[in-house]
Amino acid sequence: MKSYLDCIPCFYQQALKAARISGASEEVQREVLNNLSEIIPHFSLNTTPAEMGSKIYTMISKVTGKKDPYREIKEESNKMALKMYPEMKIKMKDAENKLLTAIRLSIIGNIIDFGIEGFDSISEKINKMLRIDFDSQVNSDGEHFDYFSFRQHLLDVDSVLYLADNSGEVVFDRILIEYLVTYYHKNVIYVVKGKPVLNDALVDDAIFCGINHYANIISCGADSPGVVLDYCSPEFIRIFDEAEMIISKGQGNYEALSGEPNPLFFLLIAKCPVIARHLGCNIGDFVLENSLKKKILPIEATESKE
Amino acid sequence: MKSYLDCIPCFYQQALKAARISGASEEVQREVLNNLSEIIPHFSLNTTPAEMGSKIYTMISKVTGKKDPYREIKEESNKMALKMYPEMKIKMKDAENKLLTAIRLSIIGNIIDFGIEGFDSISEKINKMLRIDFDSQVNSDGEHFDYFSFRQHLLDVDSVLYLADNSGEVVFDRILIEYLVTYYHKNVIYVVKGKPVLNDALVDDAIFCGINHYANIISCGADSPGVVLDYCSPEFIRIFDEAEMIISKGQGNYEALSGEPNPLFFLLIAKCPVIARHLGCNIGDFVLENSLKKKILPIEATESKE
Repeated sequence: MKSYLDCIPCFYQQALKAARISGASEEVQREVLNNLSEIIPHFSLNTTPAEMGSKIYTMISKVTGKKDPYREIKEESNKMALKMYPEMKIKMKDAENKLLTAIRLSIIGNIIDFGIEGFDSISEKINKMLRIDFDSQVNSDGEHFDYFSFRQHLLDVDSVLYLADNSGEVVFDRILIEYLVTYYHKNVIYVVKGKPVLNDALVDDAIFCGINHYANIISCGADSPGVVLDYCSPEFIRIFDEAEMIISKGQGNYEALSGEPNPLFFLLIAKCPVIARHLGCNIGDFVLENSLKKKILPIEATESKE
Repeated sequence: MKSYLDCIPCFYQQALKAARISGASEEVQREVLNNLSEIIPHFSLNTTPAEMGSKIYTMISKVTGKKDPYREIKEESNKMALKMYPEMKIKMKDAENKLLTAIRLSIIGNIIDFGIEGFDSISEKINKMLRIDFDSQVNSDGEHFDYFSFRQHLLDVDSVLYLADNSGEVVFDRILIEYLVTYYHKNVIYVVKGKPVLNDALVDDAIFCGINHYANIISCGADSPGVVLDYCSPEFIRIFDEAEMIISKGQGNYEALSGEPNPLFFLLIAKCPVIARHLGCNIGDFVLENSLKKKILPIEATESKE
């Protein structure tokens, strides 16, 4: 996905936010914004927002001297999410359509974002979402919810490459991964970032949240907010290109990969107006977007009740 | 009011918005943002956001070549608001506390902003607000609603200087001005901008909305979004400094004047997080702020029922 002019004011907002989370003084925050003003005129709209984000966060890290300012936030996110794990398991046990429920739980986890919002507020939002009776909702395809093609594709493959997004969210990913492994018997590879960027999950986060019991954990090698292939390791690129099915979590990965020809399924909450417009959906929508947009006819929702 | 770092991302948003309303191509919009990036590093937080806004809109006007891009929007706003005038007069007729009702109507008019929102949406919002039974609400002072000191001050003066904000909003100002003139017998001077800036009211707008039947209309001489005294004419400065009571509409005027020692009463809807924080209120709050914060004890609300 290319960048839009609307991304520019947003870069400033994000840079200020990140500088503050890094504990920078007002002077240093100002330095960050001034440095950004030097970068902006040379920034091509043909680069993805994720790639631009990468440049910005590298600059912020240099200016503030903080390599992993979100570390505590990430640890808290993981703990908060793990507390919700038992309730999610009950939700799965009671669900009529377990695959759809697992997908929805995974998307709910995407609400855990920059960690600026207080944990209480995020936790409350998630609990509210969890209390919704998923089965009472329409369990079929929506305009931006390619559930049937996801399920169809899943039935055709042996393995799934799963691109993580944020810490904490990892626990919600685990629910879906557990189900893909135990019920669909898929081999899952879980991909985290190579170095700290924002609150994105690293190997330690994935292990802390227990992903290692169900999937192999690898790093993409990059520290961009979203898997920007140009910054990834050759090993990861090979795995990515050979993947039969890729589940990609969050906006950053959508920004970085939405133009790629691989069999990608984007799971995210649309959080910004630019992405919502690009997807043609509303802010706050739960999105399951099949990058290939295969013309698969809806099949009967005969999901196992185990 | 000084500027805050949070104003910087907002300047970019506003600049992009203004460039688009000016009908600029994407290349020219980009040029506007790049030019802004040259200005930002030299921008002192000790200047008010209104002063910075003035520099930005002057630059946009130069780059786009459009001197009054909001002209049509302003004309539409005036017509839309005039259609609401009869309903407001009925509201006034039926009101138990007419002064408070006139103040509230004047503040409701402040919802007419940049004109980016469709007129239908603004009109719907206003109609919803008008349907609220003002008398059923608490008619006393609130934390950011210095009604009693406003009324007390009004009783002590012969004349009122009224600083306009947006076109369209002028009709809502007229309701309050009519009441100040006909019931309180005040001399009112209505102050508009000297040259086009955003959708701010000019002399023509004030006349179109019928202010001339109740008040003298003058220009402040400046074209800043908010009456930035440094940019105003010496004639206006003299009138401003001699004013017994100044009613100042909208955020721009609050940004420009909140530090001044004059007897200012700010009437506005808090629309941005920085101003809400500065005032200590919530976004969307109706604000009547007495700049002097005189310690006047609440008096009985014995407003005339005419």
